[in-house]
Amino acid sequence: MSERSERSEQVVRAGKLDAADELAGVRSRFVLDDVVYLDGNSLGALPAHVPGRVEDVVRRQWGELRIRSWEESGWWTAPERIGDRIAPLVGAAAGQIVVGDSTSVNVFKALVAAVRMAGAGGRRDEIVVDATTFPTDGYIAESAARLTGCALRPVAPADVPAVLGDRTAAVLLNHVDYRTGRLHDLPSLTSAIHAAGAVSVWDLCHSAGALPVGLDEHGVDLAVGCTYKYLNGGPGSPAYFYVRRELQDRFDSPLPGWNSHAEPFGMRAAYEPAAGALRGRVGTPDILSMLALEAALEVWEGVSVESVRAKSLALTDFFLECVTSYVPEGRVESLTPGAHAERGSQVALRCDDAGDVMKRLVEWGVVGDFRAPDVLRFGFTPLYVGFGDVERAARVLGETVAGAA
Amino acid sequence: MSERSERSEQVVRAGKLDAADELAGVRSRFVLDDVVYLDGNSLGALPAHVPGRVEDVVRRQWGELRIRSWEESGWWTAPERIGDRIAPLVGAAAGQIVVGDSTSVNVFKALVAAVRMAGAGGRRDEIVVDATTFPTDGYIAESAARLTGCALRPVAPADVPAVLGDRTAAVLLNHVDYRTGRLHDLPSLTSAIHAAGAVSVWDLCHSAGALPVGLDEHGVDLAVGCTYKYLNGGPGSPAYFYVRRELQDRFDSPLPGWNSHAEPFGMRAAYEPAAGALRGRVGTPDILSMLALEAALEVWEGVSVESVRAKSLALTDFFLECVTSYVPEGRVESLTPGAHAERGSQVALRCDDAGDVMKRLVEWGVVGDFRAPDVLRFGFTPLYVGFGDVERAARVLGETVAGAA
Repeated sequence: MSERSERSEQVVRAGKLDAADELAGVRSRFVLDDVVYLDGNSLGALPAHVPGRVEDVVRRQWGELRIRSWEESGWWTAPERIGDRIAPLVGAAAGQIVVGDSTSVNVFKALVAAVRMAGAGGRRDEIVVDATTFPTDGYIAESAARLTGCALRPVAPADVPAVLGDRTAAVLLNHVDYRTGRLHDLPSLTSAIHAAGAVSVWDLCHSAGALPVGLDEHGVDLAVGCTYKYLNGGPGSPAYFYVRRELQDRFDSPLPGWNSHAEPFGMRAAYEPAAGALRGRVGTPDILSMLALEAALEVWEGVSVESVRAKSLALTDFFLECVTSYVPEGRVESLTPGAHAERGSQVALRCDDAGDVMKRLVEWGVVGDFRAPDVLRFGFTPLYVGFGDVERAARVLGETVAGAA
Repeated sequence: MSERSERSEQVVRAGKLDAADELAGVRSRFVLDDVVYLDGNSLGALPAHVPGRVEDVVRRQWGELRIRSWEESGWWTAPERIGDRIAPLVGAAAGQIVVGDSTSVNVFKALVAAVRMAGAGGRRDEIVVDATTFPTDGYIAESAARLTGCALRPVAPADVPAVLGDRTAAVLLNHVDYRTGRLHDLPSLTSAIHAAGAVSVWDLCHSAGALPVGLDEHGVDLAVGCTYKYLNGGPGSPAYFYVRRELQDRFDSPLPGWNSHAEPFGMRAAYEPAAGALRGRVGTPDILSMLALEAALEVWEGVSVESVRAKSLALTDFFLECVTSYVPEGRVESLTPGAHAERGSQVALRCDDAGDVMKRLVEWGVVGDFRAPDVLRFGFTPLYVGFGDVERAARVLGETVAGAA
């Protein structure tokens, strides 16, 4: 079949898939242009109603009500209120998530607390960490290990079960690998961690909002995640922190700021932790970023994570197919697993001149990102990416690498 | 002299003081109404140009440029750029301050790093902390002590020199006490800490933006502060973190997030800290809050901290005088030192029914705050509080407590 007929065949298929897409209407909830935006796994697009809401927060809540807004505008309770709004997206009942701080800071809270829960004073003195993790998790894990007197053991996620033992205090894993897009088996890895008597900490940055997580169902102990990727909270919007209800009384924070006190305005010299998820709070929440996130979460109204997952797999399947059609063989190689059970919501293509290729893609209106040294990364946010976008991205990629060849 | 004539005398004085106020024109840079706002030491008022700037950040930088803004809109370098903007306000040369995280998180970074700098592996195993501190500093200090194997020693700031010794690793002090408004002697306490071979950590929350701090001049080692009080950065705007230039190579962060890596986008498994103040960064910065702060700092154009300090003392002097004139003797008692060298930019009045009194003051258009169990706290932000405001606040206070008597 000629290149032209392959192309028209994929264009036709894209049209049919878009016509049948039950989430197609959600795209209008976002501000988008004619760029194909496949970087929502780095920074989600702007929900259309967010600017107006932020303006109200700035002009009325801050400008007019000023200090009264801590109560009257619900600023003080925002971390737990927004946590409850994220909860259904990650399969958690209410009362287990608070929003605040960066992912790195939350990884630190989680790991130190996990070691304490595991009773590191005894013989459990090892933190196991995903060796292929997004770097910050590894750096923070090393710091947590150093401060708690643990050894750090980096291993590939698949090898985790083999290294678990009665020395293992905590295990930090990524649900989806930031580079390859590989989805790790959260239920079975969590079970293995529990069978070894250790505490599980999951980083959900690249899964939450793109696929079902099932924190409660699978008995995850602690979890963290960012909100600026598939949750579209805006640049650097605050991360979230999950502590399973049964563990909350034993959650002993290394960052016991006044916001986590049982009576924060009692101004007491002695620390007494609040009950529940509130214990994960630290300092004064950054209200502008936090309330932009709260508004952004409204795009989920009437949208199920299951339908998002179904569309995500259809999008990545179609992208891989179009890449096969349009890109000369051997020019790129997918690092993302073909099996649905092992795939997140992105496709990573190894490509020798990935840095240059991504620059040209961006010039031609297809935005993904480049991860050193040789990876083209394309994220598919089912809320606003369509099948026509996918076809166009693959076609432009084919033209780009052909031109560069 | 009758009450009425005292009142008209103070009204006349207020008018003269306002007429001679060289900062009077700065008030128009803020959004204010007919409320007397004496709570800028809790949440600074909204600078008038901030809403427009935030709107640009949301609509154009996030909504249109999206991921490109990390470079094109200067998002990535915001923490150090805004740090350099704060630097002159606290007497620091450029390259020593980064903005990000909450004050509590920064206190943690500072204390753990201070203990490491002091070589706690040896015999220095004590952290001294202001016993009257804002509670979060004490809670975090306790956590830092626990994680570094130090003992925590809370003492009144005046007693600090007496307890310093060759066991002292680090000392955490507040420049201005959040409750009483007492200004502590930063130069002489820092000297005493250095003479003992320990590391000084200053919390500037209640001083920065209200009076000269002189971090470089006085050889302060590490400092932290919030930006939502006298710096008017907005609710929960990010805190800042100062590391004296000569110590930066020895700054060993307990929160070594990827933003503090020498090559953050190298995605390396091994941590290698960046040079300079960047080492104090942790995770992805919360851009909306951070850029609102950056815009807010423009109100300082053409304003010297020295002129702010002079007006601040004149405002608090005048308030104390008016309180003496208008409030029945014995009804309130000032906890704030009379001596200028010991006074920050607030006045704290002990009052048996302070909670009720503050409620009525707010109803009558005078906003301060209540600190349990019995303190009325009034903050004076020289950038937008005038002498007429001060007279009115004291008069309404007099009427309020007379009515309640």
